[in-house]
Amino acid sequence: MSELRKDPVTGRWVIISTGRQKRPSDFHLERTKIIREEHCPFCAGRESMTPPEVLAFRQNGHQPNGPGWDLRVVPNKFPALQVEGSLDREGEGLFDRMTGIGAHEVIIESPEHHKSLATMSEPEIERVLWAFRERVLDLKNDRRFRYIIVFKNHGAAAGATLEHSHSQLIALPIVPDFVREELDGAERHFSAKERCVFCDIIRQETASGRRIVHDNTDIVAVAPYASRFPFEVWLLPKHHGARFEDAPRQSYEGLARMLKWVLVRMNRALESPDYNLIIHSSPLQEDVNDFYHWHVELMPKLTRTAGFEWGTGFYINPTAPEEAAQVLREVRV
Amino acid sequence: MSELRKDPVTGRWVIISTGRQKRPSDFHLERTKIIREEHCPFCAGRESMTPPEVLAFRQNGHQPNGPGWDLRVVPNKFPALQVEGSLDREGEGLFDRMTGIGAHEVIIESPEHHKSLATMSEPEIERVLWAFRERVLDLKNDRRFRYIIVFKNHGAAAGATLEHSHSQLIALPIVPDFVREELDGAERHFSAKERCVFCDIIRQETASGRRIVHDNTDIVAVAPYASRFPFEVWLLPKHHGARFEDAPRQSYEGLARMLKWVLVRMNRALESPDYNLIIHSSPLQEDVNDFYHWHVELMPKLTRTAGFEWGTGFYINPTAPEEAAQVLREVRV
Repeated sequence: MSELRKDPVTGRWVIISTGRQKRPSDFHLERTKIIREEHCPFCAGRESMTPPEVLAFRQNGHQPNGPGWDLRVVPNKFPALQVEGSLDREGEGLFDRMTGIGAHEVIIESPEHHKSLATMSEPEIERVLWAFRERVLDLKNDRRFRYIIVFKNHGAAAGATLEHSHSQLIALPIVPDFVREELDGAERHFSAKERCVFCDIIRQETASGRRIVHDNTDIVAVAPYASRFPFEVWLLPKHHGARFEDAPRQSYEGLARMLKWVLVRMNRALESPDYNLIIHSSPLQEDVNDFYHWHVELMPKLTRTAGFEWGTGFYINPTAPEEAAQVLREVRV
Repeated sequence: MSELRKDPVTGRWVIISTGRQKRPSDFHLERTKIIREEHCPFCAGRESMTPPEVLAFRQNGHQPNGPGWDLRVVPNKFPALQVEGSLDREGEGLFDRMTGIGAHEVIIESPEHHKSLATMSEPEIERVLWAFRERVLDLKNDRRFRYIIVFKNHGAAAGATLEHSHSQLIALPIVPDFVREELDGAERHFSAKERCVFCDIIRQETASGRRIVHDNTDIVAVAPYASRFPFEVWLLPKHHGARFEDAPRQSYEGLARMLKWVLVRMNRALESPDYNLIIHSSPLQEDVNDFYHWHVELMPKLTRTAGFEWGTGFYINPTAPEEAAQVLREVRV
C-alpha cells in the first residue's frame, strides 16, 4: 500500500509507493513503452481488460462493462492510492504520514483508439468535461477526500503509458502544495483589493491583447505573463467561480470549443506535441470562496532540456508568451 | 535580453527569454542533440571556442585561455541572464518584471572529455567544489545579486546539451521560490524548537538508519523521508552552517568523498543514470542565519513518466526511500 508523506522542511506532501520489494533490476530507466492499439485495454470490445466501470455514457439497451459506450470511467488498474481502508495518520519524530487512501480513476474518452481531444467534435469534448464533473460530484461525498486533481497526460513525453485518449483523476486526503500556493496568492490579492486575481488577469489581458490566444463567449485562452513553459496556455472561464464542478453549462460548452480551437492550432504550429492538461479547482471541504477562480492549464512538452527545473520549480522559459500567443493566433486551419 | 517575471497569483519568478523573434519552425520539439567529443568546445586545446575564462586552475607557466589547465570557468555562451546593464524593475498593472540581469557561468570540470564526477578522483571532485566556492565568493560582491544556484545537469535526460563534464551557476537578482519555501520551513521549525530542522533530520535518520545511504566523518547521505523521485539522495554536512561558501575545508573533502561514493554506486546499481545535482544554500544578502543548513540534492532521472508532476510540483514516487537506500548500501564495488 502507498503512503502520503510530508517533507519536514517544506511541508510538501508526496505519494510514495511502499509496495512489493523490488529487485535492483527493477530500478533501471523506464524506457517509454507506450501501449498501442494491438494491446490496448481501452478500445471498444476489450471492456474485460479494465476493472468494472464506475461511470459510462452508453447507448440505450447496452449492458455495463460491455460494448456500446461513448465514454467509460474505470478505476486505475495500478492506482497511486486506493479507496479501501481507513485513513490513518501517524507521526514518527519529525515525520508525518497518512495511509495512501484515495481514488485513482481513468476516464476513457472515446471507444475509438485513434481519436484525440484535438480530433474529437466539440460535443465529444464536452462529454469528457461532464464525465469529470460527474465523478467529482460523486467522490466529494467521501469525506476523507480534500482535493481531486483532474489531469491528462497526452503522449509518452507527457507521461502517458497508453496511446488511447484518456484522462485521470486522483482524489487525495490532502490539498497539494501547488494548489495551496495558488489559493494563498488569490486570497492575498482578494484581501488587499476585494477582487479576484484571475478576473483581474482576464481584464488586463483582454485590454492589452498581447498574450490573448483566443477569446470566445465563455472562455479566454491566454499565454500567461510568467509562463513556465514554451506555449503554456491557461483557459480561464469568464464566469467567476471557485469550483469546476459548480460551473454553469455554458462554461463547459465554451471550454470544449476552446480546447478544440487551441489543440488544433497547437498541433498545426508545433507538430502535434505531447502535453499535460490540468484542471485547477478549489479544495472540496473548504467553503466555496470568492477569491479563487477555477481554470485549466495546458502545457505542451516542447523541450526535453528541462534540467534542474524539475526538482526546483524554478523555470527558464526560452519562449516569451507574447510570441507563443502570436504564433497560435496566426495559425491557419 | 531576457526578463524576470513574477506570476501575479503565486508570486513565483521565472526567467523568460524575450530575445530574437522566432519563426514557427523554431518551436518544434527539441530533439536532444548532445554535443560529443568531435565538436566539444570544453576539451583541452579548444579554449578559443568558449568566452574568455573567469577562473582557471592551471599548471605554472601556462597562459590564460590556452591549454595546461585542470579546471576552467567561463561565461555561458548562451546565457539565461546577462551581467551587463542595470537592474530595472517595472510594474505593469498586475504584473512585475525586472531586466534579466545576472550571471550564467559554466564550470568545465576537467580537460578530458570522458571524465565524469563518478570517474574523477576525490581530489579532482574537491577541486570542482573549490571552484564553486571561489565563483560564489566573487559574484557575492555584486550587490545586484540575491541568490546563486549552483547545479549540474548530467546527461541528456537531465537537460545537458554537452557531454563533457560541467556544472553551471546562475546568479539571480531574486531568491527563487523553492529556496524561499525551504527557508520559511526551516525558520518555522527553528522558531518552534530552537533547533535546525536539518540537524534534527540528521539525528533522527542516523538513529533509525533505515534511509541512510552512507555516512562518513563529515557528510551523511540520506534518501529523504518524502523523496520526490526514485533514488533521490540528499548529502547533508554534519557541521551546521547556512552557506556552502562558508563551509570549513573538511566539509568539502567529505562532500567530495561522499559524491564519489554515491555516484559510483548509483552508476553500478542503476546503469549510469543521468542526474541533476543542486547545491542548496542561503541567499546572499540576508544575515547569516542559524536556521538554514546548506546541502546538496542529487536526483537521478529514472522515470520519464513524470507527467503532471512537472507543472504542479506534486509528486508520485514509485520507489520508497528505504528501498533506495538499501539498494545503494548493498552495491558491491
